[in-house]
Amino acid sequence: MSVYLVGAGPGDADLLTVRAVEILGRADVVVHDRLVGDDVLKLIRPRAARIDVGKKPGASSSQSGINELLIELAGRYDTVVRLKGGDPFIFGRGGEEAVALSRCGIEVHVVPGISSAFAAPLLAGITVTHRGASQGVCVVTATAEGGSAVDFEPLALANITLVVLMGVAQRSTISSQLRRGGLDPSTAVAVVESASRVGQRVTRARLDELATLDVYAPAVIVVGPVAALDLGVVTQLGDLVGAS
Amino acid sequence: MSVYLVGAGPGDADLLTVRAVEILGRADVVVHDRLVGDDVLKLIRPRAARIDVGKKPGASSSQSGINELLIELAGRYDTVVRLKGGDPFIFGRGGEEAVALSRCGIEVHVVPGISSAFAAPLLAGITVTHRGASQGVCVVTATAEGGSAVDFEPLALANITLVVLMGVAQRSTISSQLRRGGLDPSTAVAVVESASRVGQRVTRARLDELATLDVYAPAVIVVGPVAALDLGVVTQLGDLVGAS
Repeated sequence: MSVYLVGAGPGDADLLTVRAVEILGRADVVVHDRLVGDDVLKLIRPRAARIDVGKKPGASSSQSGINELLIELAGRYDTVVRLKGGDPFIFGRGGEEAVALSRCGIEVHVVPGISSAFAAPLLAGITVTHRGASQGVCVVTATAEGGSAVDFEPLALANITLVVLMGVAQRSTISSQLRRGGLDPSTAVAVVESASRVGQRVTRARLDELATLDVYAPAVIVVGPVAALDLGVVTQLGDLVGAS
Repeated sequence: MSVYLVGAGPGDADLLTVRAVEILGRADVVVHDRLVGDDVLKLIRPRAARIDVGKKPGASSSQSGINELLIELAGRYDTVVRLKGGDPFIFGRGGEEAVALSRCGIEVHVVPGISSAFAAPLLAGITVTHRGASQGVCVVTATAEGGSAVDFEPLALANITLVVLMGVAQRSTISSQLRRGGLDPSTAVAVVESASRVGQRVTRARLDELATLDVYAPAVIVVGPVAALDLGVVTQLGDLVGAS
């Protein structure tokens, strides 16, 4: 009875790690999120049970229910996989699942995944760190785990790119708080919708235009001079989404 | 003539993406960094040429020399792979390579990798975001790309975990600037040396003890309440390093 917390990456199956593919191929049961892509789900061993615990945006997420489900499954199966979009320890509440399982004496294995926080900008041709333009990157969600609001004002940092996950609904607040914190209204922003999936779309604008952009979740917002970059790289999106 | 900027992840070959493995298997030439692990290098097609452009810490890095080499190789080979530790667009100067190649009309493909910024804490049982303890994560290097010093004082953010790459030599400065910025001297820190490699070691301490810790590069420094966590997860380090 082992539970594997496995990162599924941004969506495309080719962006899974070798280890993630190996574990999906021998899983007895897979408990997955809504945002895990179809071509990733195809890698699950056919005889494995699958449970979709996808939380819809805005719905009251029952993290404790998921924790209890994993504990229960660990008692019935040898290899339980908890498959999470992106990386299990980056805004995935994977830490809470690990704590709940460990408290019950269940062995927890963690396999990192490609986080959308870094991959979504990359797939849009944006390098979040770049000599002369960005010394680092700060990653937050618009609503903190637990539901409290994030204060964006202190995140108006010179020379540090800001990446906001799940921030589309709060984009007006993000824009105004960052400007209050000292960012210039003309600071570049980019919104990357559906990174690595069919329908990936990149919208570039100024910080003071963010509130009025016609963009939809799931999306990653990038704020800082690098958001104006488009390195013109090929990210093989055609290949990426070919299987979905 | 295509150049692939490929992320090699933190060291273990099983943490490569499926796409990275596929591209290494058909490369004509691979230009790699010093920090790319031996078991990753074993995945390169045997007949491919290999060029180690590893920059030693403290040595004057000749990024322009690497750019010129890649341009030259792109004229001679069909499939040139630039294999970079971690993710190519996170402190890898991959953006500069992409710009230099694109300017010469060379097609650049980018494949994301697992960044040590997130994987090193994970492999130490630390979840960098955690409900009630951390609303986000800020990632910087101690020395910015281009050589200028990073000012850590504004990075003393409440509720945001700080991850510092390549910061061992500057740990005294990091500690004093963060305390000047308002972090409590008792704030938890963790230093993860050689993440995912033989010799991985985690040292936990307080911020005011950071300067005196007996730690060595390559290492990732984590600052914030989550640094005190050890979720007790199994990261299969034995398996990870079994092949090296």
